[in-house]
Amino acid sequence: MKFYMPTRVYSGINAVKAHADEMRIGAHALIVTGKSSSRKNGSLDDVVSVLEKNGTAYTVFDDVEENPSVETVMAARDRGISCGADHVIGIGGGSPLDCAKAAALMINNPDRDWQFMYEDTRAQALPMIAVPTTCGTGSEVTGVSVITRHDLGTKGSIKHRIFPVLALVDGRYLLEAPSRIIKNTAVDALAHLIESGVNAQADTFSDMNVFAGLAEWRKCRPYIEGREALTEDAALMLMNASSLAGMSIAQTGTTLPHSLSYLLTYEAHIPHGAAVGVFQANYIACAEKDRRQAMLSAAGFDSPDDLRRVTDALAPVKADRALLERSAEAVLANPAKLALCPFAVDRQVMYGIIDI
Amino acid sequence: MKFYMPTRVYSGINAVKAHADEMRIGAHALIVTGKSSSRKNGSLDDVVSVLEKNGTAYTVFDDVEENPSVETVMAARDRGISCGADHVIGIGGGSPLDCAKAAALMINNPDRDWQFMYEDTRAQALPMIAVPTTCGTGSEVTGVSVITRHDLGTKGSIKHRIFPVLALVDGRYLLEAPSRIIKNTAVDALAHLIESGVNAQADTFSDMNVFAGLAEWRKCRPYIEGREALTEDAALMLMNASSLAGMSIAQTGTTLPHSLSYLLTYEAHIPHGAAVGVFQANYIACAEKDRRQAMLSAAGFDSPDDLRRVTDALAPVKADRALLERSAEAVLANPAKLALCPFAVDRQVMYGIIDI
Repeated sequence: MKFYMPTRVYSGINAVKAHADEMRIGAHALIVTGKSSSRKNGSLDDVVSVLEKNGTAYTVFDDVEENPSVETVMAARDRGISCGADHVIGIGGGSPLDCAKAAALMINNPDRDWQFMYEDTRAQALPMIAVPTTCGTGSEVTGVSVITRHDLGTKGSIKHRIFPVLALVDGRYLLEAPSRIIKNTAVDALAHLIESGVNAQADTFSDMNVFAGLAEWRKCRPYIEGREALTEDAALMLMNASSLAGMSIAQTGTTLPHSLSYLLTYEAHIPHGAAVGVFQANYIACAEKDRRQAMLSAAGFDSPDDLRRVTDALAPVKADRALLERSAEAVLANPAKLALCPFAVDRQVMYGIIDI
Repeated sequence: MKFYMPTRVYSGINAVKAHADEMRIGAHALIVTGKSSSRKNGSLDDVVSVLEKNGTAYTVFDDVEENPSVETVMAARDRGISCGADHVIGIGGGSPLDCAKAAALMINNPDRDWQFMYEDTRAQALPMIAVPTTCGTGSEVTGVSVITRHDLGTKGSIKHRIFPVLALVDGRYLLEAPSRIIKNTAVDALAHLIESGVNAQADTFSDMNVFAGLAEWRKCRPYIEGREALTEDAALMLMNASSLAGMSIAQTGTTLPHSLSYLLTYEAHIPHGAAVGVFQANYIACAEKDRRQAMLSAAGFDSPDDLRRVTDALAPVKADRALLERSAEAVLANPAKLALCPFAVDRQVMYGIIDI
């Protein structure tokens, strides 16, 4: 058994301003974010106003696209090196946070080329602060950074593990998100919980995160499913469910549905939450019975089909059968990805999971 | 809400040898332990054999008494400075681990005298590894170090927060502990869970630790209460319950029972577990009803009186009424200690809690 999640997390309304003192971790911050949402939801303003009050210099890199590429990471790295950044602040959903982590690594290892991200070494990154604005990534409490490889035509985790030193979680930012973003990212959080709970690495410590997360996600269902209007408090609860899901995968990693999703996102441009969500019902159906029932009931589902009904409604997916089969074959060819699965996976089992 | 527990924890049979590579954190280790138990249970041998294999120099300081004093910390510090230690390894129950933390602080701040421990600053300590051998302290996953102040005639936490960088938890060491140590320390772990759950700082994150810990403690009851013989696996489960309890108080701190216990231990030499355990039933009886019931039932108790029956049997206490009243008055005079209590505490409430 193991537990490791070194990030200092504060969750609350106005978290950034309330923890301004703890944001003093360097002289020049590289802010890594997307083009627009962090401007609309106030998160960028909050961070900038704290930096200015703290007398911390900063440079904004706001060119992060959805599913950021190696090329984008290297552009952020170039900006960070040229401005002399000694720490990085990622603001946004999973894309800016993952890009910020990889940039923090590359800025601190300026003599290395982009392949270094995929080398299996333990290198130090610049310290990084995460300010999430969606309710799915969990990246604020994991060491994981998933980056798009155009050379390989898919997405993949970099090898290094870069935990933020500080995560500042504020529900206000989520209030400004479009409904489809909330639904997609909430399904991603649920997927993290299911894949961590049905996992060869699951243990008492990771289960603690999983079941706390499932209970929190269950409380959020009226807001996720649109039956009640999102409030500031509910938005914060949603982001907390996502952080708990992130803590879960920080212990265990994700499994088959995440592995299967990457081609769907790369080739068919299916949003990440939808692309992982579509496999959850079939995946949990393969789990050992007691575990499956305990997890489904913790999230308020009667059965895998009940779960399917909800994920389909929240994040519908139309995927081409040929693409699904190519994904399945790619994962079947990768024993490391199969090893995290607690049940045996042959072609028949895999094709059952992609039978969506 | 907040979460912070940066220690990398590995729990398993042979954890020390299995993680030998991760113990390479410096050139010279100061090992801080007690006179005998870490020799008897094999933990000191395991650590020394890894250090020798790793080519790490080491010096053993084995003069830690139960409830270690400022003077003992300073003696360990002197030993560490004179041998040139660049990291510290604490092995044992709460006493050696807490002493190791304080020594790690003082060795890294060699120009400061002992009062520095009680100064409210953020100073860096040497990196420290914790190898617990009992099932109560939780010190392996907290930043807390409780040290005896002979000048004040009591015990108290130092101000600095020193989390181990690595905790290696192995049930085999507990198998060698006398039954009274297992009972006393298991009651201490239960006290951590109750005081974290009934706490003004309790939130979704700390509750996650608390309820996972209560469930684990419940599974251990047959072994704690002596109805079944302790096995290696059960011993590890007991130590995991204790680590979960430690993670809980790392988030919230302890409350009234711990504050009340310190004089009992200092003046009447009541073991720490017994001295905190004796107040638990009265303390939880003051909690809000739903919370009280949820917590009691998670640990398998029907009522506060059922809990009292068990703590009295495991860790019986005879305390002088005058001493109890002096403890109560000392805590009443300390608003900071009362502030962690989620219910209002006046003299009447406090005297209810000491009515044991």
